[in-house]
Amino acid sequence: MAEKLLGVTVGKEENFSEWYTQILAKADLVDQRYNVQGFIVHKPWAMRIIRQIYRMFEEELERTGHEPVLFPLVIPEENFEREKEHVEGFKPEVFWVTEAGDNRLERRLALRPTSETAFYQMYSLWIQSWRDLPLKLYQSVSVYRYESSTRPFIRGREFLWIETHNAFATHEEALRQVREDMEIFRRVVWERLGIPFIFLRRPPWDKFAGAEDTYAADTLLPDGRVLQISSTHDLGQRFARAFDITFVDERGERRYVWQTCYGPGIWRIVAALISIHGDDKGLVLPFEVAPIQVVIIPIYYEEEDRGRVMEKCSWLEGLLRGEGIRCRVDTRERTPGWKFNDWELRGVPIRAEIGLKEVEEGYVTLFRRDLRRRERVEDGAVLRRIRELADEILETLRKRAEEWMRSRIVEARERVDVLEAIRRGCIVRMPFCGREECAEDMREATGGAKVRGTRIDEDSRPTGPCAWCGAEAKEVVYVAKAY
Amino acid sequence: MAEKLLGVTVGKEENFSEWYTQILAKADLVDQRYNVQGFIVHKPWAMRIIRQIYRMFEEELERTGHEPVLFPLVIPEENFEREKEHVEGFKPEVFWVTEAGDNRLERRLALRPTSETAFYQMYSLWIQSWRDLPLKLYQSVSVYRYESSTRPFIRGREFLWIETHNAFATHEEALRQVREDMEIFRRVVWERLGIPFIFLRRPPWDKFAGAEDTYAADTLLPDGRVLQISSTHDLGQRFARAFDITFVDERGERRYVWQTCYGPGIWRIVAALISIHGDDKGLVLPFEVAPIQVVIIPIYYEEEDRGRVMEKCSWLEGLLRGEGIRCRVDTRERTPGWKFNDWELRGVPIRAEIGLKEVEEGYVTLFRRDLRRRERVEDGAVLRRIRELADEILETLRKRAEEWMRSRIVEARERVDVLEAIRRGCIVRMPFCGREECAEDMREATGGAKVRGTRIDEDSRPTGPCAWCGAEAKEVVYVAKAY
Repeated sequence: MAEKLLGVTVGKEENFSEWYTQILAKADLVDQRYNVQGFIVHKPWAMRIIRQIYRMFEEELERTGHEPVLFPLVIPEENFEREKEHVEGFKPEVFWVTEAGDNRLERRLALRPTSETAFYQMYSLWIQSWRDLPLKLYQSVSVYRYESSTRPFIRGREFLWIETHNAFATHEEALRQVREDMEIFRRVVWERLGIPFIFLRRPPWDKFAGAEDTYAADTLLPDGRVLQISSTHDLGQRFARAFDITFVDERGERRYVWQTCYGPGIWRIVAALISIHGDDKGLVLPFEVAPIQVVIIPIYYEEEDRGRVMEKCSWLEGLLRGEGIRCRVDTRERTPGWKFNDWELRGVPIRAEIGLKEVEEGYVTLFRRDLRRRERVEDGAVLRRIRELADEILETLRKRAEEWMRSRIVEARERVDVLEAIRRGCIVRMPFCGREECAEDMREATGGAKVRGTRIDEDSRPTGPCAWCGAEAKEVVYVAKAY
Repeated sequence: MAEKLLGVTVGKEENFSEWYTQILAKADLVDQRYNVQGFIVHKPWAMRIIRQIYRMFEEELERTGHEPVLFPLVIPEENFEREKEHVEGFKPEVFWVTEAGDNRLERRLALRPTSETAFYQMYSLWIQSWRDLPLKLYQSVSVYRYESSTRPFIRGREFLWIETHNAFATHEEALRQVREDMEIFRRVVWERLGIPFIFLRRPPWDKFAGAEDTYAADTLLPDGRVLQISSTHDLGQRFARAFDITFVDERGERRYVWQTCYGPGIWRIVAALISIHGDDKGLVLPFEVAPIQVVIIPIYYEEEDRGRVMEKCSWLEGLLRGEGIRCRVDTRERTPGWKFNDWELRGVPIRAEIGLKEVEEGYVTLFRRDLRRRERVEDGAVLRRIRELADEILETLRKRAEEWMRSRIVEARERVDVLEAIRRGCIVRMPFCGREECAEDMREATGGAKVRGTRIDEDSRPTGPCAWCGAEAKEVVYVAKAY
């Protein structure tokens, strides 16, 4: 069986778009041949990764006092009409259910593109007194948007996310929630998945439809375009007024609540995970999200050696499973080399190779996917070493990703700097006048680069004039092409 | 604060329908005031229970070689048309998406009422060789059916389930899968949730649309109507032919696959859990599914005692959490009596009461919800006793439920027996001629009782003539009114 597994045939840096498409199919993540445009089939390998990411967020959300709910998929058209900006922003993207059985429905029902207008009519029933606050709920669901161009995990007509919807007695609490949302995101996406990003306050013309302010996390993909992987919104009291959500405070006065909503983009986190950690051999998964964390490959060439090799494989499998490590012995009728490539494509973080030599000399050969490096580990130390490797792999991925992203953030003082940086696929950091017309002019001249906003964790006071128009600058912003 | 919590105001036996409605609201499971008929809001208490049930099934399915996938919500109309019986069965129940943004779609898209016609077009791409078999996939999703009358967890326009779709090389393997499906169901629903049921092979006129044979689990609700809580289908090769799903076998011959599909009704299992284990005080949850397994109630009447009582509560909370037990100290500003009632309504299996006496004498008062009985447990024994109680509570619930259901299965030899048993809200076991017209006549005469099928785990050979029409009997069937 000298068969060859066809790996990725193009480099990630060389042609990111083609690399990404190949990974999706060859790592068996999705099937794009479903017969409705923009709707894809999630295969088991993707579903298991996604499930881990959901669990991480759900843990963090519940630790911070959020509770799970499930709201209906369908939202009556009239609900949308209640907040003016919201309806304008979302209506062009809505799928409508209009018929059922042989009947035409009396009113159209939207497939949720986001659920503010489903949740908040209920909030007006549930919230009466200051005792009912804060109210912090979330749901883990698919949402639906009529997008014209789609790409798995980046933009879809159906995609997976979490949405939280919170209500508070004061604006201060709402703003504290925005910071908590960002902290939750950092704990999962940076600390546990090793994906770097910057948190930005979006410019006024790029806010969520219906929000007072939008804060979002942008990461950078290898083709030099940023990807928004999360956003959290200070809704002020706009929806409270639209849906009449009031409470009686401790002094007996009736007041509108202050609201926030937050959308960690589970789909887009997967896109970032694939694109940022992946390499020319395939996916590279952090230990914690990998569906299989350690794959065990038996290696023998004579049938008579099979028993001893398999025995040691089973020993290791039992040892790891007993410790809650997801592992599997690959007993498929394929050559070891084929299996190596297959699991590298899928990004399994650690491979244990067990052959006769390993049996006779009492060690295991461990291969770490991040550095593609083998090491010899005595049987008695293998469990400890795997635990160490889990941490080391995450550390390597995180460091590599962060250094790369940092190297792609470039300061600009003049128009030529901006043009050059965008051409090179960088994020530009520059003084900016704050005018939408200037941003628009820059977008046209650069072939699409947008003002993504001001960074919330640094001093945004400018030290020179607007790098684009030369007028007085108001703030320091980040500019990049975006998905 | 001598406030009173309004409990359930009607007995379960006295008026089941009203009891059920009150429980849904008072145990804070759902809100039925959402403004689309038949679509409800699932509140946190229900979502947490549902999540546990999903996890149990997902564990069992993965243990038996099923893998998770996620297929699109929408299915093009043309897919439905491919299997004739299936389209006839489901089309009257389908919600249709026909518009998006400002556009009318070129073809209607169904919201999945069930996903055979989404999965199987992909199976025809994925299955080529005997090496691709068996293929065993599942998804945990909501489905959509245009039902005229709805009831939370019993019948909804949107409801939660799992669907598995399996393909095999032979009919024998498919039939083995049907048995495995039933075994999975037994392990979760009987062994872990304590819900009794009987497994029946449905009569030919009551099969799933497109199946060769349907096997289903019926449980009995307190009002004497059975509820189908699961069904598994031998699809034969019908869909394989309709969707052209073939494989090349080991001898090089191209053959159609044999298929099964299986739908544990997560929603209906919740309905059974509520209805069968619940009592006049509210829900009664088995330990394993309870969102809070042990609630700790501090009891003190003087502010100066607060510290010592709370200290012991925290100690117990830490002890239990460390062991992975879901628990909470109820520190709300309410009287102990109010809290007792609230948690009894919600069905928390064990309540720990901690007052001054408990602090001074070194014990904890444990209250078990199933028998509504208190016991005194020394501090050092409390963890062990809680573990024992977890098992004892399940055992009590299971035994109570099984005895009740068994007492409601009645043998009938003649028409008068059937009428009397159905009138009393029982399931009838009777010899039956096998004719649909006879079943129909019986249904009309009894005000709705249906032939539910033959039991698969007993001898179904009749010992007398058909209890309804007196003609020669072919088999022993079960007859009941049904949801």
